[in-house]
Amino acid sequence: MKLNKNSRILIVGLGLIGGSYAMALAKKGFNVTAISKEQSSIDYATEKGIISEGFTDVNRDVVASAEMIIFALYPHIFLQWIKEYGNYISSGTVITDVTGVKCAVIDEINSMLPKGVEFISAHPMAGREVYGVENADDRIFHDANFIIVPTRDNTPGAIEKCKELGEILGFKKISYLNPVQHDEMIAFLSQLTHCIAVSLMCANGDPNLVNYTGDSFRDLTRIANINEEMWSELFLMNKKALLYEMDCYRACFDKLYNAISVDDEDTIKDMMRLSTARRKMFNKDGKPK
Amino acid sequence: MKLNKNSRILIVGLGLIGGSYAMALAKKGFNVTAISKEQSSIDYATEKGIISEGFTDVNRDVVASAEMIIFALYPHIFLQWIKEYGNYISSGTVITDVTGVKCAVIDEINSMLPKGVEFISAHPMAGREVYGVENADDRIFHDANFIIVPTRDNTPGAIEKCKELGEILGFKKISYLNPVQHDEMIAFLSQLTHCIAVSLMCANGDPNLVNYTGDSFRDLTRIANINEEMWSELFLMNKKALLYEMDCYRACFDKLYNAISVDDEDTIKDMMRLSTARRKMFNKDGKPK
Repeated sequence: MKLNKNSRILIVGLGLIGGSYAMALAKKGFNVTAISKEQSSIDYATEKGIISEGFTDVNRDVVASAEMIIFALYPHIFLQWIKEYGNYISSGTVITDVTGVKCAVIDEINSMLPKGVEFISAHPMAGREVYGVENADDRIFHDANFIIVPTRDNTPGAIEKCKELGEILGFKKISYLNPVQHDEMIAFLSQLTHCIAVSLMCANGDPNLVNYTGDSFRDLTRIANINEEMWSELFLMNKKALLYEMDCYRACFDKLYNAISVDDEDTIKDMMRLSTARRKMFNKDGKPK
Repeated sequence: MKLNKNSRILIVGLGLIGGSYAMALAKKGFNVTAISKEQSSIDYATEKGIISEGFTDVNRDVVASAEMIIFALYPHIFLQWIKEYGNYISSGTVITDVTGVKCAVIDEINSMLPKGVEFISAHPMAGREVYGVENADDRIFHDANFIIVPTRDNTPGAIEKCKELGEILGFKKISYLNPVQHDEMIAFLSQLTHCIAVSLMCANGDPNLVNYTGDSFRDLTRIANINEEMWSELFLMNKKALLYEMDCYRACFDKLYNAISVDDEDTIKDMMRLSTARRKMFNKDGKPK
């Protein structure tokens, strides 16, 4: 079950990620069609040659003739779209997504799909702090992780097809997690980090700080520039796992706070040593960055 | 009162920062001498041409003949050094430092200095997650802030000399803060961020996380690779200001936690909007990085 360059790959949603998918696929010679609510996004993508055609309305023939459909939408819009137009999708079609939460999405999508349509969920762990197809850039995938999130309903063929997609997009590493594992992981690595950055920025409004800052503060708060529509949705759709990770983190923060307040140098140093040892595992190519 | 290229600048402590100071000064043609406890650091720096001579012992003549002395030591070692050898310093000499906390250091240093020796404190807001003169690189200053921390005891001449030093080192921006302002600022921008990164790394020990991570987690935890000797000392010497900033931050974190737990989307979005607006002020050259 190989992705066929002559058949149609349909991308629904032409933002930063949908656009970057289209760019990578087009570069490899695939025939990419897009559906986007914005005519300007379609015009831009057509002009740049990253899609062969695009539509602002949901055309039944376009949907029905796709070999693979990639949904690059906010979670609630993805759910709404399938509810409204899912029956346009032909039996035998494989659909996938880029959604940042899985438990709240996969079962509901599956319950609405027509028989013979298979949903294999995936999460490209790549992004930027800018939005829209105008900022699309498939190079964001080259150093990034692609996570495939199969359930017991998925067939080996569809999982393989999704893996092939990850390879075509140029991801550095492709991994597999089940939906629960995915949501726990994402709660810690992504959602909690965004909660931290937002809280930190909210904690101090001194406009002079920029004159004194070093790069560590900039690095830590890069993600504090955040799309509130998308992220509030992701947080609430993964509430249980996120609150759990927030609790664990806060317990460590409080431990450090208490150690500082009673001059418990041993505990402070122990935490720093543990932190240093663990952080080394995240170095890229062994380099401390 | 201009720094004289023919007179001796003495750097005490030849680690990453002391070494990078020496490198920048040598490139501009200054005559740099160093005192370091490690012969290997002196050998390296001499070989690289970033110092003209170096000593592992504290030679009274070397100290007495310096026009300016820069202390690049851990705070407690700086205090100890001045206690032991401060009387070697000649009247008329200006001394400065690179210490990351100020209130706990400046008054105590001043109380120990011989008459006629002036201490003008400074904080180069630059660093790396590596240590030692072997990693010295004066380019770390080029995009960074240099903060001069005068007290009412300082003369305009010494402040000017310190500013000149910041310019020679190649800092992008030179600012002035009093010791209390400095310590509050550093508690928020630097110490709190290190507390956050350390707590985050301590909160989860799953060795598989590296396979799924994106760059935002890497950026946020870069500083979790931390020198526990230096940082535990900095934390405890600035305890009051740091605990205050930790309190403010935790209040925001708790507010976000509570909003998520009761599905209060408005509060979540308000915090994200505030965070985004504030973070934009920290963009470099208007770029979202």
